[in-house]
Amino acid sequence: MAPVAPRSGDAIFASVERVNAELFTLTYGAIVRQLLTDLEEVEEVNKQLDQMGYNIGIRLIDEFLAKSNVSRCVDFKETAEVIAKVGFKMFLGVTASVTNWDADGMSCSLILEDNPLVDFVELPDTCQGLYYCNILSGVIRGALEMVSMKTEVTWVRDMLRGDDAFELQVKLLKQVSEEYPYKDDEYSEV
Amino acid sequence: MAPVAPRSGDAIFASVERVNAELFTLTYGAIVRQLLTDLEEVEEVNKQLDQMGYNIGIRLIDEFLAKSNVSRCVDFKETAEVIAKVGFKMFLGVTASVTNWDADGMSCSLILEDNPLVDFVELPDTCQGLYYCNILSGVIRGALEMVSMKTEVTWVRDMLRGDDAFELQVKLLKQVSEEYPYKDDEYSEV
Repeated sequence: MAPVAPRSGDAIFASVERVNAELFTLTYGAIVRQLLTDLEEVEEVNKQLDQMGYNIGIRLIDEFLAKSNVSRCVDFKETAEVIAKVGFKMFLGVTASVTNWDADGMSCSLILEDNPLVDFVELPDTCQGLYYCNILSGVIRGALEMVSMKTEVTWVRDMLRGDDAFELQVKLLKQVSEEYPYKDDEYSEV
Repeated sequence: MAPVAPRSGDAIFASVERVNAELFTLTYGAIVRQLLTDLEEVEEVNKQLDQMGYNIGIRLIDEFLAKSNVSRCVDFKETAEVIAKVGFKMFLGVTASVTNWDADGMSCSLILEDNPLVDFVELPDTCQGLYYCNILSGVIRGALEMVSMKTEVTWVRDMLRGDDAFELQVKLLKQVSEEYPYKDDEYSEV
């Protein structure tokens, strides 16, 4: 069967089921508040958010592959572009830009200027070590792991910490295998 | 100034910012899982979800009033219809039906056949006392309290417990005052 062309992030976002962004933002805020209450240590909250994101990412990748018709990226550069332009758009309704590539193409930054997770959020002084959006780094790490890319994802800039953008560094540690754990045909659009 | 006509739930939902429903569903699932781990007692999880919903509801009402042009309902019957047809649509993209009114119009049921919170959810046997969607009852209670209606919101039917629909009973306990805490003009569409 001829491969189906990948769909644009806008087209996919327009076609998937959605919920109100403010409800999502407030619900996410409720999680963070709950974790801060239960775990006390900000560092533990960062870890837990990342872990929750990872668990979400390993499931969300299925929806991504099913809806986007993206089957196989030729290299990590293309993968990063797809995350930024299709992945972010499809799930959060915003796009990221990809920049700061290192010389060997193994590490880059995703820069988000618009981030629905942080609408109305201000961190109190007691939370200064918090990476409020740490769920995002976990989602990316989890999703990439399911397509055989072991990555490290860390925050370089964070607007809630006074920076001028959100910048996530994504570093490819290891590409486990050339074979993805799915067949191209399985995810054709239905 | 002449009052602006209320907008339909469909029109509002089409105009608000949205995020992918599956991301929301998985994020909500992550909260519930986290609470089950941290709190252990299912009854405590129910309470906490309700409280989180309440905190969300008291903020979400602002977005609702601002975007819907609904300013004042003549009675509790109209309020229930607005929640079912405009509120649910605006935030979750689904509508509910209103039924089971008691004789004095103080209690009714909201029935949801489609509920994005529970996609892919199956409860293990250890969670049988859990009201998985208890955040919803809290949201309704919190939002109504901000427009001076003290209510009790409880689950009558729950598809995760084997029922054929989700049914929330909303009982008006007390209408605190005829004056809402906002002026009609403040929420005209911008």
